[in-house]
Amino acid sequence: MDSGEAMTAGTVWGIGVGPGDPELITLKALRLLRAVPVIAYPAPEQGDSFARGVAAPHLPGGQTEIAIRMAIGDGQFPKDEVYDAAAERIAAHADAGRDVAVLCEGDPLFYGSFIYLYMRLAGRCAVTVVPGVSSLTACAAAAGMPLVTRNDVLSVLPGPMPEAELRACLATGEAAAIVKVGRHFAKVRRVLGQEGRLNEAHYVERATLGAERVMKLTEAGGDSAPYFSMILVPRRGGPKP
Amino acid sequence: MDSGEAMTAGTVWGIGVGPGDPELITLKALRLLRAVPVIAYPAPEQGDSFARGVAAPHLPGGQTEIAIRMAIGDGQFPKDEVYDAAAERIAAHADAGRDVAVLCEGDPLFYGSFIYLYMRLAGRCAVTVVPGVSSLTACAAAAGMPLVTRNDVLSVLPGPMPEAELRACLATGEAAAIVKVGRHFAKVRRVLGQEGRLNEAHYVERATLGAERVMKLTEAGGDSAPYFSMILVPRRGGPKP
Repeated sequence: MDSGEAMTAGTVWGIGVGPGDPELITLKALRLLRAVPVIAYPAPEQGDSFARGVAAPHLPGGQTEIAIRMAIGDGQFPKDEVYDAAAERIAAHADAGRDVAVLCEGDPLFYGSFIYLYMRLAGRCAVTVVPGVSSLTACAAAAGMPLVTRNDVLSVLPGPMPEAELRACLATGEAAAIVKVGRHFAKVRRVLGQEGRLNEAHYVERATLGAERVMKLTEAGGDSAPYFSMILVPRRGGPKP
Repeated sequence: MDSGEAMTAGTVWGIGVGPGDPELITLKALRLLRAVPVIAYPAPEQGDSFARGVAAPHLPGGQTEIAIRMAIGDGQFPKDEVYDAAAERIAAHADAGRDVAVLCEGDPLFYGSFIYLYMRLAGRCAVTVVPGVSSLTACAAAAGMPLVTRNDVLSVLPGPMPEAELRACLATGEAAAIVKVGRHFAKVRRVLGQEGRLNEAHYVERATLGAERVMKLTEAGGDSAPYFSMILVPRRGGPKP
């Protein structure tokens, strides 16, 4: 760059690409991910990135790509060093005047690994978050189950919670979405049974994808579930009429 | 129609148009709302429909429109008759073979009035829900505030809740989003103060619209807030690092 020119730093965009169906991306996300010179995305240590897969039909090609490889899944949380290094690479592009789109499954700030990049980058670069369709509302749509209405409370509860805490949250009778079910499936089912809430619960796996499965929880077998699964529990007595 | 032909009934689409910015609509919602011959939307008793306003830049023109006029706002819930009549009109179009898109602010199943149409129509017509970006994640993006990470719990709490219940929910220290603040603003602020959670809370008004306002709750004055406002309260101690 000509040393006489002032350089404008790039923006880091945290972009929710939605729950899986490439058509559930927003127009804003689409515009930005087509326009930026650099994209970044979380990816497993080996194999393909889910977020990149959702965005893939929309990518123009020719972009610089940063795969942020990390241990993903049940009870595994990436090391600080992974985020430190990714934040450095992303910030270097922004410092050099290049916008970076970080592709995020669902919504960036709802259980998104983007949060850890955001905490590292927000004081250093311009960072803007573009909200996306979350797995929460995608699963509700797939199950045809109203989440909350009027003055209902909704609790989002991770499957790995200690059993007693999970039971206490479900004892209130309010609507709940249990996320990150995975290997906690048997525990979650047991607690729902104890609280008399098994029969109304629905199980949703891989919502909006071709492999989507939706059923009453009582019909879902096995003691574990995929990482991309959720159990929706309606308010005791159903939505207020 | 020729009496020798079997008629295919139309589908009712519950379409989330997102939180307000017309660019936060999904590609799927856009495709459907351009394709259907009939659109329906909630509207106040007098004046313009918010959901229709969000969709307006995308509408092709020439569609039959059904404005479902209802009392909207703080503590006001529409009468059964309003939904009964709207469901009849919508079902009549579907019965006659015409698809109907019901436009919904945010997401159809997250505090959406669509839920009441859904409960009336689901047994009678083919009804499919297209999830949208909810106010929850739109407000988090506007405030730049992570909602939940790892195994955090998130509670969505309506402002009209009784004060003691609201306090009990906030006493856990988990992340919370307080919706439908409206005329309950003073009560909510008081409870947050009592629970020592005032300083970290953020106030978001009309997220993603031109009139968007975002500030620390301690800087938001007055005893009431607009219907489209939310208070986000991070987990005590912040997101797990």
